[in-house]
Parts: sequence; structure tokens; C-alpha cells
Amino acid sequence: MPGATEEETMSRRTIDWVDGEIRIIEQTLLPGREEIVAVREVAELVDAIRRLAVRGAMALGVAGAMGVALGAVRAEERGEDVGAAVIRAAAELRASRPTAVNLGWGADRALAAAAGGTGAILAEALAVRDEDIVASRAIGERGADVLAGCARVMTHCNAGALAGVEGGSALSAVRVLHERGELAEVLVPETRPLLQGARLTAWELGRMGVAHRVIVDGAGAGLILGGRVDAVVVGADRIAANGDVANKVGTLAHALAAAHAGIPFVVAAPESTLDRHVAHGADIPIEEREPEEILGLGGARVAAPGSGALNPAFDVTPAGLVTAIVTERRVIRPALGERPFPPG
Amino acid sequence: MPGATEEETMSRRTIDWVDGEIRIIEQTLLPGREEIVAVREVAELVDAIRRLAVRGAMALGVAGAMGVALGAVRAEERGEDVGAAVIRAAAELRASRPTAVNLGWGADRALAAAAGGTGAILAEALAVRDEDIVASRAIGERGADVLAGCARVMTHCNAGALAGVEGGSALSAVRVLHERGELAEVLVPETRPLLQGARLTAWELGRMGVAHRVIVDGAGAGLILGGRVDAVVVGADRIAANGDVANKVGTLAHALAAAHAGIPFVVAAPESTLDRHVAHGADIPIEEREPEEILGLGGARVAAPGSGALNPAFDVTPAGLVTAIVTERRVIRPALGERPFPPG
Repeated sequence: MPGATEEETMSRRTIDWVDGEIRIIEQTLLPGREEIVAVREVAELVDAIRRLAVRGAMALGVAGAMGVALGAVRAEERGEDVGAAVIRAAAELRASRPTAVNLGWGADRALAAAAGGTGAILAEALAVRDEDIVASRAIGERGADVLAGCARVMTHCNAGALAGVEGGSALSAVRVLHERGELAEVLVPETRPLLQGARLTAWELGRMGVAHRVIVDGAGAGLILGGRVDAVVVGADRIAANGDVANKVGTLAHALAAAHAGIPFVVAAPESTLDRHVAHGADIPIEEREPEEILGLGGARVAAPGSGALNPAFDVTPAGLVTAIVTERRVIRPALGERPFPPG
Repeated sequence: MPGATEEETMSRRTIDWVDGEIRIIEQTLLPGREEIVAVREVAELVDAIRRLAVRGAMALGVAGAMGVALGAVRAEERGEDVGAAVIRAAAELRASRPTAVNLGWGADRALAAAAGGTGAILAEALAVRDEDIVASRAIGERGADVLAGCARVMTHCNAGALAGVEGGSALSAVRVLHERGELAEVLVPETRPLLQGARLTAWELGRMGVAHRVIVDGAGAGLILGGRVDAVVVGADRIAANGDVANKVGTLAHALAAAHAGIPFVVAAPESTLDRHVAHGADIPIEEREPEEILGLGGARVAAPGSGALNPAFDVTPAGLVTAIVTERRVIRPALGERPFPPG
């Protein structure tokens, strides 16, 4: 933001509600440019979610709730049916990114308050935001406890402040480890195709003053088996009832390597990412995105003209590879047979 | 090449000896532009190898041999000491990419002929080239036998015609599978940071008429565990006496996933890639390349200015994960305890 001091920028929330509209940090421009975008219509928010201007499980939960509130506020201003507007908004938001369970969870939270009218819906959305901030801190403290003694940590994608309102999940734990003086270095897989690791996580770690190096995603396994990593900690987009974890594509390879090397693979996520309605990871819908995200780089086409691409945005790590799931309330140990929810 | 028909271009060898100089396809420009570069000095060849204008285990073996011949021919033209020149050339070539065992192997082949003078050195280099073409075909046939019944194949990086004189290793097997009508599709990990998969392998498969799709490297494990791949086949840069395999960074993750899913992980490589002098993968030197290969994309910086990178170019897949090593002479089954060379 032109004219903003670093302190002002730092204090900005990834997503917030200001003066009857949603304000988001436009993440597609980071780290080159920091820009806050005002979102006044549900359709604009759906577009921002689809192009990953706002992203990350926790932030999407808040976006789902605030998006429903936005639908209510605009409908009321225009004298339209608020009930119909919020039901439509919730459906559109839920469909915008199919793997991300928090979107629908947040939308449902706001929707459940609809009987109280627009004011109640907005109040609920703001409660979702405030709870997110509290959950981030709790996940960070508990995650750092689980990771105690791990000086060299690898993450994947971005599960930081930019993936929540303020603190995020995996990077919240990294921040607490850093505050406790236990952290030596974070390895940051760049996270192709959209480079959230190189663009967002490295930027956040730099601001925290945490030593870090970017790696290509494919280097993770070799560095783990080579004894250069003490633990892997990531966020999640949806966790099945049995503990299978859907997260950004590339996560599973790190989990396989961690299991082979015998180091912890830790998932940090709010309770709202646990989906009791999905029994196994195989039932989690995996979003496939446009081939162009892979085939072009920096505006230029990389592959030969006749070549297509397959672009799943997520993968599923089986529960047996997950050392711990850390939420704001508990630690679940799927590799030891513990489940987020009982079977049946 | 301007004016060249496709047939002429297709018939061009990746590396060859023409009129007293080495001719290579300049691979950094592919697939956008096909250009043959003439290399007249050893220093030029070392530079071409370092910037990956010529690359791939088999092609580097030929480059090592032809590079020594180039040193001999130039020294003789200038009236310099041929013996001193070839020893210097072999040392410079060997050091140019430390993980690639074939470079030193090829240089040593030519060097061993030095007692016979420049003519004998050149004849030996041309023999290395001719044997490479024959080995490619044999590896392809035997590799296709090992992969029989595997319709959906994943590879990594480029172990094709561009990685040898003509046929390469892993893609030679893919070509034979295709000729036998057994192949449905090849999944092509893009292979960050330098995108040899997206740029070179996809281009080669397109020319072969093989159906293929590019994926990000991190998607490999999820597609394998999701049951969408029947086998993985890759090349190698160096194989230890116990069967540990050094190959392009990102390979290990696919091997871990293949083992977890119970599908074959096959390594196709000439005998010259087997290094009896290295007992285990941990003893293979792993080349680390410049951070800039990761931090910039298409000329623009991706990560924030304060962020560094760690850029190992290779990783080591433990023998226990390797279903088969296929050479021009034999099939070795490391996962069953077979070794390329006996211990001690």
C-alpha cells in the first residue's frame, strides 16, 4: 500500500469486515505488491476465492461466513429478499472451491443465524473471524508443544497469517517455536503451480525474522531422507473422519518421506477443517484447476503446443502417515489409530 | 533450424561429431526453438554441460568421450602436447557436473586410448557414441518387457532421445511400449527447477505421437496413491554398487509413492551409469546448483528479496524402493536384494 508504514501493513488482517464490505489482501500480487481489495458483492468474492486472491482453510472459513453476511447486507440495502439472498450466497461460496470444507462451514455458520436477520448474520460472521484469531493462537501453542525439539522444520504451501485472519495454522506453530528459541531454519517448498510457498510463506517467515530457504517441491523427500529435516508441519483443506488429510498438492510426498525417515508429520488445523461427514480421504472431492496454471510460466508457454496438463490442486495423505493432527482443542494421533471422529 | 524439414530435425542427433567439432542440440531453447550449436573448445563444452545445453546420463557419457577427443584434436592442430591436453580435458569434464558418473566414464574411455594418439582417441569417442545408440535400443526393448501390461506410465525429468545420442533410456522403453500398442498415457512431471519434463519430455512424446499430460512434480505421489498410474520409469545419473539410485531431484518422491501403492518403480540406464566404486547412495556427491534457478521464474523474481534457496539437483532413491534396474545387458531387482555389483 503506498504511504502505509510497515507496522500498519503488518497489522492488517488477511480478511476483515470494514464499513459494510469485506477487505482482503490481494494475495496474487504478493510479495511484489501489497494491496487491499474491497469486495462489495458475493460474485466478486467468489471470483476472488477462485483466483486465490484469498485462500487458505481458515481464511476461507471466514470468507464463507462474511460472504453470506455480504449477501444479506446488499439484499437488505436493495430491498430484496434477504433469506433467498443468503441461501444463494452460501451455495455459490460452497461451490467455488470444492475441496475446502471451511468455506461451507463458515457459510453454514452465518446461515444458521439467518432467522435473526441481517444484524445477527453479520454478528455471527464477525464471531467466526474473532474465533479464528483465538484458534490460531491455540493451534500455534499446541503445535509448538508437539514439535518441541524440532529445530529444522519443513512446511508446504502457505498455512500462515495469509491463510487465516491473522496467525494461520502451521506457521502459527512455527512462530511459537521461533519465539521459544527452538527454531534453526524452515525449508519452504515453492508449491507449484501457484508458488504459495515461495511467494507467501517465504515472505511471512522473512517478516517474522525466521531463517528459511526455498526449495523445489521435489527436493523435499531427498532432504528428509538425507537427515536434514526434523519435522514436517502443514495445514489442511479437509480432514476426513478417519484422519485422512487433504492438503495442497505435493503434501503427500513429504508425508511419505517423513514416515520413511521416521520424523513427525504434523497437521495443524482448526476443528472446522475436520469433516465428520466424509468417512475417508477417497471421498473428499479434489479440485482440478486449469492446465494453463502449469503449462505457462511468467506469461510464456513452457511446454510444446500439443501438450496438455492434469492439474489436481490437492492430494490426500492417508491417516497412517499422519503423526499428529493439532487443533485448537486437541491433539489426535492418526498414525497410532486415533480418529478425529468415531467410525459410523 | 530455419529451413530444416521436420524429418531432418528428427534425424539430428542430440550430440554428434561433425567436421572436427562437436554438434549439440541447444536444449535450453527447447521446445520454443531448435538450434544446433557447434562446440570447438573443451571450455565451451564444459560451459554447455554446466548450463544444461547438453544433459542426461547417456549424452554426458558421449560428451565426456568427445570432449577428450576435442582436446586432443585442438592440441594437435596447435602443436601442443596432446597427452597433457587430454588429461586436463578429462579432469575439467569430470568436475563439471559431479553427480553424473557417465561424464567421467566417457572421458576415461577416450583417455584410455590416448597411447594410440589423436586418431585412436577420436575413434574411441565415436565408438562410445555408436555403442550408446545400440544400448538405447536394448534398454528400450528390455525395459518394455519389464513394463509389460503397464498402460499408464509416469516418468520424471527427461531420459529420452535428448538425454542420449538418439533414444535415451526410460523414454526408449516408453517408445517400445508405444510401438507394441500397450501404452495409454504418460504422465510427465514438469521437473522443477529447469522444467526438463515440461520442456523436453513432453516435446519428445508429442513427436512420438504418445498421449501425455504434464503435471507438477508434487502431484505425482497423489496420482500414484490414487490408482492412476501403473508404473514409474526413470533414468539415472549414478547408481551405487548396492543399487541406490541418484537421479533428478523429485525422483525419490515418486519412488516412495510407488512402493506405498505397490506399483513398479523401474530405472532404465546403461551399464556405464552403474558405479562399482561407490558403495552406497550416501557416498554419491549431490550437485547443488544456484539459488537463482528456483527464486526467479521467467526472468522475474518470485520470492521476497530476503529469501534464499537450497537447490540440490539430484536425490537418492534407496535400493529397497527400486523394483528393477534395466540396462542394455541385464535386469537387476534391488527391492528383492539383488545388487549391481557384489559387496566389498
